[in-house]
This record gives sequence, C-alpha cells and structure tokens, in this order.
Amino acid sequence: MQGYPKPISGLIDELRKLPGIGPKTAQRLAFHLVVSGKPSINRLIYSLGEVRDTIGYCSVCGNLTDVDPCAICQDPKRDPSAICVVGYPKDVLAIERVGGYRGMFHVLQGYIEPLKGIGPEDIRVKELIARIKDKRQEVKEVILATNPDIDGETTALYLARTIKPLNIKVTRLARGLPFGADLDYADEVTLARALEGRREI
Amino acid sequence: MQGYPKPISGLIDELRKLPGIGPKTAQRLAFHLVVSGKPSINRLIYSLGEVRDTIGYCSVCGNLTDVDPCAICQDPKRDPSAICVVGYPKDVLAIERVGGYRGMFHVLQGYIEPLKGIGPEDIRVKELIARIKDKRQEVKEVILATNPDIDGETTALYLARTIKPLNIKVTRLARGLPFGADLDYADEVTLARALEGRREI
Repeated sequence: MQGYPKPISGLIDELRKLPGIGPKTAQRLAFHLVVSGKPSINRLIYSLGEVRDTIGYCSVCGNLTDVDPCAICQDPKRDPSAICVVGYPKDVLAIERVGGYRGMFHVLQGYIEPLKGIGPEDIRVKELIARIKDKRQEVKEVILATNPDIDGETTALYLARTIKPLNIKVTRLARGLPFGADLDYADEVTLARALEGRREI
Repeated sequence: MQGYPKPISGLIDELRKLPGIGPKTAQRLAFHLVVSGKPSINRLIYSLGEVRDTIGYCSVCGNLTDVDPCAICQDPKRDPSAICVVGYPKDVLAIERVGGYRGMFHVLQGYIEPLKGIGPEDIRVKELIARIKDKRQEVKEVILATNPDIDGETTALYLARTIKPLNIKVTRLARGLPFGADLDYADEVTLARALEGRREI
C-alpha cells in the first residue's frame, strides 16, 4: 500500500497534536492546506512565526501580550485599586468583552488541583500577593473570577482565605441562573446557589 | 475593551480560514499553540514549509506527491492495464488502505457539477482520455470509483459514455448495503440498488 507522501503525513501528525483534532480532521485540514496553495500556507507560517517571536507573558498580570507590561497594565485610565483574578488569558478577554470593568487583571495561569498535585505554589499566587501588598498600588478589592467548577471554587476559597487577612475586600462573581435558562432544566447546584443568592427587588 | 494582542488575533484569523474551524475552535487552537512553546510552533512551521516546498500534483495521475511521477505511477509492479478513477487524492488512499488493488489511479480533482458550472473540461477528464488512448499503456479496464452521490453519479455517467466507445471495459464500484447495516434503517435508494445488484450465492 502507498500512503501519503511523507511531507503530508508529517503535517497530519503535527495537526493531530492540536486539541480536539482527530485523525480525520487532521487529514482534512492538511489536504485543505496543500490544495489552498503557497500564499495561504505562507500566511499561516507567517502568523505562527509572529506569535512565536512576539508573544510572551506580561510580567505584571501574567496575561499573554506582545508588549511588557501588557496594554491593560500600562493603561493610565484603568483603576489600579481593583484586581480581577482569572485562571487563563482567555478569561481576560471574556470579561473585557462585557465592557464596564475598568480595573486590572491577574492571570493565575492555572487552578489549584490537589488531585493532580497542583498547589498554590504552582500557579501565580505569589505574584498576586506581592501586587496586593505593594503599597504603591493601593489595591482595595480583589474580584475572584475563577470558573464556577470544583477547581475554580477550590482556588477561590484558598485565595479568599489568604487575602482577607490583608484587610482587602474580596468578592466573587455572582452565581445563579444564566440568562435565558429554564428553571425546569437547571441543575440542583445552580438552583441552590440562585436561591441562596436571592435579592429583594 | 482590550482585545488579543495583534499577533494572536492574526493567528486566530488564519486558523478560522480552515474548513470546520469556527471562532471558538480557532481561539482554542491559537492559545494552545501560544502556550505549547517555541519548539512545537517550530515543528508545525517546518511541516507547513515542507508541504509548501515539496508537494505538487503527479503529472500522470493527478495525485498529490513529492516526486513526479508519483510513487504509484513509477511502481513497475503495478498493473498499467487498469485505471481506477477517483475524485480526490484522499480517495486514492482510501482504496490503497483496503489493499488488493494493484492497478493505477487517475484523480479527477473534482466532479462534474452542472449547477456550479463545473463541466468535464474543468476536471481532469482530458488527461484521462489521453492516458486511455495512449497505445503504450494498453489500458483494458477503467474502474469508476467516484462517490455514490449526485455529483459522483453524474461524473461516472459522463465518463462511461465517453470511454465505452473506445472499446474499453468500464466498471463501477458495487452499490448495496454497507457491512453491518440494518435493513430496517437503510434508505430506499440504497435498498433499491442492493436489490438491483443482487447475486446468486
């Protein structure tokens, strides 16, 4: 049997390493790229090279950036007294997309996951505490915007316990029913949280 | 609002051009690549460059190849008297994977699609006829292995009408129930074809 020419099977192997890309998808992508011609392969190579050469982590907040400190940390119009703590760089964009939040960010680059042996020292907790203790920043509020799942909750609980003794206001994103949800289909935990957090109108 | 750094959004835009990759998947892939580090980005860039620089179409059969003529067309152990006609390069591998077929291939690089204005002159029909008429090859059988759908059938019908007058045996892949199928769930066309093509056992 004749397989694919080696360069094509090499590309398929590389594409298969990407998350959510199985053998059939990798094959489809590779053929698409081969057939799409040199200019579009060149554009992809150029983009990959640019990301490789310019993107790093912001030394202040830990977000991905092409300048250091990142555009948010450098922005004089943002309020340095509030720090929103998230797990990953993509969460920063999710909150920025909403608009309205004018404070700073801190990207943990992971969550505390005891079962995987990931402790507070393995994510960017030390850097967060240093930022809070830095008197020049006058941090007044830390908003814990970790994911509403086990790892996110564990991490938020740990951070709340560590930061509260520093006399800083610690808040957490509200939990409840998502917009457009159907009571009948809501899971028990979500419904219990929504009841717990009920407000007078 | 702060978006992604420009190199990252550039990479996301490039990834979105790939088939079946939406905005969320492109974002996930881009972040995976950014975080995976320089060596793995370099491996992907290298694979893309290799495909760009070495892969072309075989001048004989039209398959994708890194040598011309391709490995199948060059193989002296293959039988030049049979040509299996397929729509796309990936179909060659599908048939090679089965094993057992020892003849040559011809890749049309498309199907006749009247509704899209794709006629016989837009796919590699002319090249196929030239190969059949070439006395040195002594082609005895043309196996039409186009897809069992509207475009594949249209193309097969056209090719059969064009090739038969040349006194060449023209065959078509058998149609019927796929292995493991359930009669009850088979569509009418498949079942009708299976009845039509019934064989004595």
